[in-house]
Amino acid sequence: MCKIEDIKFNEGLVPAIIQEAETGEVLMLAYMNEESFKKMLETGTTWFYSRSRQKLWNKGETSGHLQYVQNIYYDCDGDTILVKVKQVGAACHTGEHTCFYREIKREK
Amino acid sequence: MCKIEDIKFNEGLVPAIIQEAETGEVLMLAYMNEESFKKMLETGTTWFYSRSRQKLWNKGETSGHLQYVQNIYYDCDGDTILVKVKQVGAACHTGEHTCFYREIKREK
Repeated sequence: MCKIEDIKFNEGLVPAIIQEAETGEVLMLAYMNEESFKKMLETGTTWFYSRSRQKLWNKGETSGHLQYVQNIYYDCDGDTILVKVKQVGAACHTGEHTCFYREIKREK
Repeated sequence: MCKIEDIKFNEGLVPAIIQEAETGEVLMLAYMNEESFKKMLETGTTWFYSRSRQKLWNKGETSGHLQYVQNIYYDCDGDTILVKVKQVGAACHTGEHTCFYREIKREK
């Protein structure tokens, strides 16, 4: 049985990888505390904890770019979350679909 | 131009999401310091910094389950890395292909 008690909140936080369910594209990484994790379970949309603003935020609350939760996974160590979502609009505040829009090239 | 100077190592570390290039499956999350990041650029395989053992590790060095780097991205804030890899064998030390093999179900 998998449950919230299996998740280790390190200093109160766990990193959550957000992946678009339909395309497999990794959209962003943000941090959840236990309260935001529970809000996600309750509401079916993603909630995070902002370390800089020290408050909960519901992704897309202002922009309308909500993330509807499809599946939630946690890793072997219980210290990282993976959330598959249906993304409305763009995930990134820059307007890009994913926050990972810049590539670093290896010299070969 | 995207380069290592754009990456913010928070307390010396940056979380790196490892994704299988071929399938899009998210395999694991681990942490890199600047030295391990440079080793990845040099060698073309993933290197991390173990916080518990306080040393660098080359993923798959012992098991043979190496990760060959295909593409490296960083996010809008410069504080998370996404690495697309060709995974040899299983990514997880449990023998599972991905570390995210356990699902938490929402009650609907």
